[in-house]
Amino acid sequence: MNIPQSSFPRVVIIGGGFAGLAAAKGLEKQELQVVLIDKHNYHTFQPLLYQVATGGLEPDSIAFPLRKRFNDVENFYFRLAEVLKINPEKNQIETSIGNLDFDELIIATGSTTNFFGNTNIQKHVMEMKSVPQSLDIRSLILENFEEALLTSNMDERNALMNFVIVGGGPTGVELAGALAEMKKGILPKDYPDLDIRQMQINLIQSSSEILKGMSAKASEKAEDFLIHLGVNVWKNLRVLEYDGKTVTTNSADSFRAETVIWAAGVKGELINGLTTECIVERAARIKVDEFNKVLNYTNIYAIGDIACMSSLKNPNGHPMMAQPAIQQGKLIAENILAKISNETQTPFVYKDRGSMATIGRNKAVVDLTFWKFQGVFAWFVWMFVHLFSLIGFRNKAVVFLNWVYNYIRFDRESRLIIRPFKKNKKA
Amino acid sequence: MNIPQSSFPRVVIIGGGFAGLAAAKGLEKQELQVVLIDKHNYHTFQPLLYQVATGGLEPDSIAFPLRKRFNDVENFYFRLAEVLKINPEKNQIETSIGNLDFDELIIATGSTTNFFGNTNIQKHVMEMKSVPQSLDIRSLILENFEEALLTSNMDERNALMNFVIVGGGPTGVELAGALAEMKKGILPKDYPDLDIRQMQINLIQSSSEILKGMSAKASEKAEDFLIHLGVNVWKNLRVLEYDGKTVTTNSADSFRAETVIWAAGVKGELINGLTTECIVERAARIKVDEFNKVLNYTNIYAIGDIACMSSLKNPNGHPMMAQPAIQQGKLIAENILAKISNETQTPFVYKDRGSMATIGRNKAVVDLTFWKFQGVFAWFVWMFVHLFSLIGFRNKAVVFLNWVYNYIRFDRESRLIIRPFKKNKKA
Repeated sequence: MNIPQSSFPRVVIIGGGFAGLAAAKGLEKQELQVVLIDKHNYHTFQPLLYQVATGGLEPDSIAFPLRKRFNDVENFYFRLAEVLKINPEKNQIETSIGNLDFDELIIATGSTTNFFGNTNIQKHVMEMKSVPQSLDIRSLILENFEEALLTSNMDERNALMNFVIVGGGPTGVELAGALAEMKKGILPKDYPDLDIRQMQINLIQSSSEILKGMSAKASEKAEDFLIHLGVNVWKNLRVLEYDGKTVTTNSADSFRAETVIWAAGVKGELINGLTTECIVERAARIKVDEFNKVLNYTNIYAIGDIACMSSLKNPNGHPMMAQPAIQQGKLIAENILAKISNETQTPFVYKDRGSMATIGRNKAVVDLTFWKFQGVFAWFVWMFVHLFSLIGFRNKAVVFLNWVYNYIRFDRESRLIIRPFKKNKKA
Repeated sequence: MNIPQSSFPRVVIIGGGFAGLAAAKGLEKQELQVVLIDKHNYHTFQPLLYQVATGGLEPDSIAFPLRKRFNDVENFYFRLAEVLKINPEKNQIETSIGNLDFDELIIATGSTTNFFGNTNIQKHVMEMKSVPQSLDIRSLILENFEEALLTSNMDERNALMNFVIVGGGPTGVELAGALAEMKKGILPKDYPDLDIRQMQINLIQSSSEILKGMSAKASEKAEDFLIHLGVNVWKNLRVLEYDGKTVTTNSADSFRAETVIWAAGVKGELINGLTTECIVERAARIKVDEFNKVLNYTNIYAIGDIACMSSLKNPNGHPMMAQPAIQQGKLIAENILAKISNETQTPFVYKDRGSMATIGRNKAVVDLTFWKFQGVFAWFVWMFVHLFSLIGFRNKAVVFLNWVYNYIRFDRESRLIIRPFKKNKKA
């Protein structure tokens, strides 16, 4: 792969998400050679993908070029590649651009959409785990509205203006809220010929409450906010099938919709080569001990969404979110340095900093350990936490500017169909 | 096409570029029904495309949603469609979404890249006339650098790091300058393993000076600036062929390059249906009289790049640039209103407001009628003229912020490969 040999041990990190990035930062400027591999040349700030999908932010503001982050770090190498296989017995990985030996390997591949084996659903729904996928959703929403103008068939127009979001977790809730705001302030102005009441936003949750991981108060309030914004919240409803036209469920309810966004689950983004016994089948995650070391191996670690670390509080592993990923990334760096200098390693303890979700303008829910609050103040807290978590001054400044503008003008200006989705798909 | 009938005459405008937009603005809030048709749902500020291609700006900052511009205008309709044919005898156009009758038709389709019939070149080079094309160039530049890291074959690496820009007009010059700045400040930091001296930027001009339309002083100074920035300027050199590997010319010089950007000419974006005698063959433009009326027709007009209006000063039509387009757009609106109210129409007289080009940081050339200047002040003038010509407050603010940031930090942060170009092409 054209990485120079060095006298320092080589740590290879697969994935530049929250976990991989935190690990790479922790390993800077040490007596180590660090190689970071990602299939994109940028880090994606996933919590704001829904704003790209709904025209509120440019993709360039929530993505950050990985090379730039590390371009003044010595002994650091970035490679744009896909990792195809791990060969633990050889301490080597196979990638799309050749093989690479490692001394220590950190797997931080994150997660991908989980369709629970339903290939039909997988084929027809939209996902929102990457920048290109979010841009596809943006294009599709606008293309459907353009198409709705052209038909006088009421059923067809309803289907074009009907949005179904499957999954009532933070992603589904935030996206539903953002769509509702588009329905309120933007689309009626852009499409005065359409009867905006035909636009329906359906949020479908299989269990009895949305935002299941948060407090009961947050779930309740988020649901209130959504209903107030005009979202149809369906609880205890399970999507069984989608053929590109109709969503069928485990009840008599079915939905004719041209746009179905699947936010119902994630699973680990596995790489071939590890023994089967270290894979947790249900969510395709890798079993690790309290030091994020993969079962059966001595120099292979998994961190972030892909890692499944059982603890008393989280028997099925930590939540697949940014916070555990960042914390594990930081610790793994410390522990690898400790290992090399023969010091004792520290077991991972998850510090739950709380969780939050925004539903729309002035509407958010925040759960901290000792304080749970909802509404305007929560919304400001949400904004500032996200703003300051973005990487890079330019991204922070551009996002801030856009948010101030969108707030004052009740607007989201990035409603551009740059790469048509439907048209290309049909062609 | 589902446009309601009204008692007002219907003016159809094809194209939402500078010309079409100016015409549409001039026809607002009159006793008219206006239908604007474009194949994109946004207006593109073409003069800044090269900054999108070189990672200095986000695409969303130089594109503006057309619906938004007119969403408070009554009797105005936008349709996202491709116009396939004009049927002048029926006063009707055929589009990808159905037929539409018109009372007055304004053709403002602009221009497209002119390959002068060379299909081989057309197949292998990059164009830079639209947002997606500019994003493809951005991806390709970065993909080539990533690939250059992987090969130890010197010839191959040279080809990957060799950039050939064909055409020394404003587009070619500005792009060459921007690439040179990337070579200077950004790429060596991002790719410390590569020898940046292998990156060559070749600007090829068929005539004896670059920026031919500008003053001799501007051409000279622009060339000095480019050479100072390390660009190889080739004059009196004509590209004959490019097979995806090697650029051959009318001299012994040839260039092995993986990236060739064609900025050597434009031609009108014609639509079928007009009589052949009203088409100027050379540049595929439509012959119009001094009122922008198309030869042989009474209610069909052409404005902007697509229109060829012979005048004493410009026997082959006005330059295919923003200024004539905007001025013709404004005037055609006035003249159509005059026609309807039986007043006299005003013939078009082009007011040359001057021209300018930027080569890089603190380096630009400006030609005004009575004052020609180059250097830092010219650069500031260039910046402010472009900033204030952008549509929309948000775009102005975001571009300004990016420029200040890029200026202070010597940076261009949008170097993201969001949609890989080479990879998709190969697949």
